[in-house]
Amino acid sequence: MKDILGENDKIAAAVHERLVSQRVFVLNLLGSPGSGKTTLLEKTMAALKDEMKMAVIEGDLFTSKDADRIARHGVPVIQINTSGGCHLDAPMVEKALAALPTAGLDLLVIENVGNLVCPAEFALGEDAKAVVLSVTEGNDKPMKYPLIFKESALTILNKIDLVPYTDFDVAAAQEDIGTIHPGAMVLPLSARTGEGMAAWLDWLRTKVRTRQEEA
Amino acid sequence: MKDILGENDKIAAAVHERLVSQRVFVLNLLGSPGSGKTTLLEKTMAALKDEMKMAVIEGDLFTSKDADRIARHGVPVIQINTSGGCHLDAPMVEKALAALPTAGLDLLVIENVGNLVCPAEFALGEDAKAVVLSVTEGNDKPMKYPLIFKESALTILNKIDLVPYTDFDVAAAQEDIGTIHPGAMVLPLSARTGEGMAAWLDWLRTKVRTRQEEA
Repeated sequence: MKDILGENDKIAAAVHERLVSQRVFVLNLLGSPGSGKTTLLEKTMAALKDEMKMAVIEGDLFTSKDADRIARHGVPVIQINTSGGCHLDAPMVEKALAALPTAGLDLLVIENVGNLVCPAEFALGEDAKAVVLSVTEGNDKPMKYPLIFKESALTILNKIDLVPYTDFDVAAAQEDIGTIHPGAMVLPLSARTGEGMAAWLDWLRTKVRTRQEEA
Repeated sequence: MKDILGENDKIAAAVHERLVSQRVFVLNLLGSPGSGKTTLLEKTMAALKDEMKMAVIEGDLFTSKDADRIARHGVPVIQINTSGGCHLDAPMVEKALAALPTAGLDLLVIENVGNLVCPAEFALGEDAKAVVLSVTEGNDKPMKYPLIFKESALTILNKIDLVPYTDFDVAAAQEDIGTIHPGAMVLPLSARTGEGMAAWLDWLRTKVRTRQEEA
């Protein structure tokens, strides 16, 4: 296991170095099945496509359902199918990048397989991980799946339009995430209604601008 | 990988044989993080504890949060912590059973780690798998994670009280599950409101009665 991770990390570092040299900001987007990662990406593409150049790598077990949804927005997208595997790894991303021109890109989002466990353990060459947690999943998830929240610079608390119909306590979730990962950012939003999306879009804009300004 | 599965299946078969000889019906309960597996179990314990003897094995990465919830109902429960592992396996269950008296039990439920991928690949000695899919996870999940639906005799469509606030299409989900697993049963319910719970409880009663009646 240690050797697999060592080899993965070497390839992830090479991928990262190459994308940094091209001034592309790379986000590894994580979350449970159904947390709303693809819907968030669709709304993000629609909001940002006139101000930055984006591309997406979609990780799924078998289908191209998510890649098809992204492609409809006119954004370049590459599908990786893991054939049942529970996470993406850096060699898969390296291979996908052979088919995806990255020169001139501002933002590359890698949507990982829906899973709160395995994807947290594999670097893909990203600058940051962000995890999408939907309020319908319940308050206990950060403490039950701590590694993914520890690894993620940002937690997107999605589906906040459904809070009134659940027992979810936003303040308690923020506190738990702060305990697991002091300084991590938490952004409550609803990709569906648009509430809270502005803060997420600004987070992305700042990351992309910072990368552009690096010498 | 094949050898690991072969060894796992041998231990699963031994666990199954032992529990069949004690006339215990064993259910392997699967589903995404936050699909509502533990809440469903809590409501099930409350409804059935006067008519059958139950016990629970709880699988989680690190915490005993779910086992604590089950223990409050006065039902024997053993916690397995996988230390970050993404699924239970048969050796873990065999070890847990050393601490859980099963003679005289009618029903043993093994709640697996919250994950739609890895747990589908490992038999634990169960008679049947059931997968909990909450409507807030979206319609596309059966087609995106087909193995777990193919492996499960029953899909519990949970949180149907939230259907009006989502885009979930119950009929389409049933059709997809029927395509992946012809003859599989689909039970829409809400563990929180109790709607649809009667059919699930009857499904369990029938399984337990059938096991008792086996010579």
